[in-house]
Amino acid sequence: MNKLSVVTGALLLTAVGAMASDSDNALRKKASDMGLKPIPASQLEVMKLVDDAKNPITDAKVELGKKLYFDPRLSKSSLISCNTCHNLALGGADGVSAAVGHKWTMNPHHLNSPTVYNSVLNDVQFWDGRSPHLADQAQGPIQAGPEMAAPKDLVVERVTSIPEYVMEFKRAYGYDVDIDFELIADTIAIFEKTLVTPAPFDDFMNGCNSAMTKEEKEGLKVFIDKGCTSCHNDIGFGGTMQPFQVVKKYKFAEVGDFEGDENGMVKTPTLRNIEETAPYFHNGQIWNLATAVKEMGSTQLGIDISDKDAKKIVTFLKSLTGEKPDISYPQLPASTVLTPKPDMD
Amino acid sequence: MNKLSVVTGALLLTAVGAMASDSDNALRKKASDMGLKPIPASQLEVMKLVDDAKNPITDAKVELGKKLYFDPRLSKSSLISCNTCHNLALGGADGVSAAVGHKWTMNPHHLNSPTVYNSVLNDVQFWDGRSPHLADQAQGPIQAGPEMAAPKDLVVERVTSIPEYVMEFKRAYGYDVDIDFELIADTIAIFEKTLVTPAPFDDFMNGCNSAMTKEEKEGLKVFIDKGCTSCHNDIGFGGTMQPFQVVKKYKFAEVGDFEGDENGMVKTPTLRNIEETAPYFHNGQIWNLATAVKEMGSTQLGIDISDKDAKKIVTFLKSLTGEKPDISYPQLPASTVLTPKPDMD
Repeated sequence: MNKLSVVTGALLLTAVGAMASDSDNALRKKASDMGLKPIPASQLEVMKLVDDAKNPITDAKVELGKKLYFDPRLSKSSLISCNTCHNLALGGADGVSAAVGHKWTMNPHHLNSPTVYNSVLNDVQFWDGRSPHLADQAQGPIQAGPEMAAPKDLVVERVTSIPEYVMEFKRAYGYDVDIDFELIADTIAIFEKTLVTPAPFDDFMNGCNSAMTKEEKEGLKVFIDKGCTSCHNDIGFGGTMQPFQVVKKYKFAEVGDFEGDENGMVKTPTLRNIEETAPYFHNGQIWNLATAVKEMGSTQLGIDISDKDAKKIVTFLKSLTGEKPDISYPQLPASTVLTPKPDMD
Repeated sequence: MNKLSVVTGALLLTAVGAMASDSDNALRKKASDMGLKPIPASQLEVMKLVDDAKNPITDAKVELGKKLYFDPRLSKSSLISCNTCHNLALGGADGVSAAVGHKWTMNPHHLNSPTVYNSVLNDVQFWDGRSPHLADQAQGPIQAGPEMAAPKDLVVERVTSIPEYVMEFKRAYGYDVDIDFELIADTIAIFEKTLVTPAPFDDFMNGCNSAMTKEEKEGLKVFIDKGCTSCHNDIGFGGTMQPFQVVKKYKFAEVGDFEGDENGMVKTPTLRNIEETAPYFHNGQIWNLATAVKEMGSTQLGIDISDKDAKKIVTFLKSLTGEKPDISYPQLPASTVLTPKPDMD
């Protein structure tokens, strides 16, 4: 190669780079205009986003909350923990169509367990949005008969019968702490708030052009152009209440009896880590992500998304698979003779 | 204090130190004479103890084995993993009297889940000792109807439908690996072999006099003098086949129908981490460790162990609570559209 061609090549590369950068900036603006927001790159900004001055996140609370999250003794049987249905090893969900709980009971509405990852970014919790935040949400499944089936008193007795747990609550909240059911749920929620998973999409939106591939960027364009962002937007790509079955009935609407809140509104599921959390929809009836994308096109948008476009969108969605926090599997404090016994009935 | 009294004091301390050391040496000899052995202090010696030249332990196999151990997709329902009954957060067991598995089925013989920690040190596996080693043992519960209920083929199909798993098997065993059910169980066993938990008792036996308290040493003497070491010996403090109900029937013998092997022999449970693994006995009927000690006295040794001596023995047993390996909770590879679906029936 002679000197001239090297120079020409370099100029060409610079020009291509500038062009790529221009189109990247345009894509970022387009995404931003449609309400898509990244998880901030700065840990401090993430903390500001998820923390609550009324019960601030501290290491002691997170560590205790993690133990409680993994502790099956919070269930009546002592066999089911939060992690059973919201398994941090499996994208924060359970991979079955409807949750299975106490006495092998399937969720009576045939509802699918949503992922716990990034659930702090949701506006509301539960499929019908009946809960305003995680600390409130966490109280539900622990008590629900078909889930963990544990009355509040039982949970408190189990926890307070274990001196190490009592000591950890004192360390986390001060020596005059009153360990009630609500505080146990609050503490679990504090751990859950740390389960935010930044993904290549976020790096791209935060300015790193190379974080997403050309194909993923192309998929993002299709995702926006088809109108997916009308429901899947903001940092969570979901988590807000939206009308469901806007254009026509969802193909598997007859499975289970869930019809949303009193207005037929449904909490839009996050699309973060979506490739890890099949099966899809509130009743977990679709296992293939491209099929789910096409179903949403016809049900919600009244459009026929082609196989080719669905594939492009799926390629983009994979750029929402985030980095999970390192979780050291806890050593739970041993039960004592005072700990209420497991109850299988 | 004058100079003389300082010197006298120092001499006295040295003398007391020497006396303590003499009595520590005597206790070590006594323990050793009764067949008690420590987990070696050297990692290399531990490896020699647990490794097998036919399928040597490597990091790649351990990491893969850990994933499989935690993966509920190895069960028919995709809800039950090895860790469900042998929970590494709960002393390696489940804390319920009899194991509960597929479709909420209680173990038909009302058998209690033994701890997985230090199970590699057992001579044989299962309560009736029918299995010679962990790789063989691991095949049982995965297939057993009341446990994980997964036929061999289903397990292999689930694992091989996930490209990341296939790649990890290739990395662990070479590119021509044949991923069959037996290799999956072998790999789980390799992870389990790493679950050895050195305890204060071991440090004491390995020469550190201060590793055990005075009360624990006193308890060890009582443990030996009462004859507990006739069954609970070697590195595992158990794990060998021994006659059961030598002197009289166990108090709760009528719960379940387990009567040992064809000769009425039973695998002696390890006493390592025993304070963490209530309830006790093959049918999990005793929740209090001191009560369990007294029951063994009358059932096996034909002696009445006083409350005071039982308490001393329990104090010693706590020095067998070991340090658990740090377990980073795994991120399991996502299922694909080819992965056989969960089956709750």
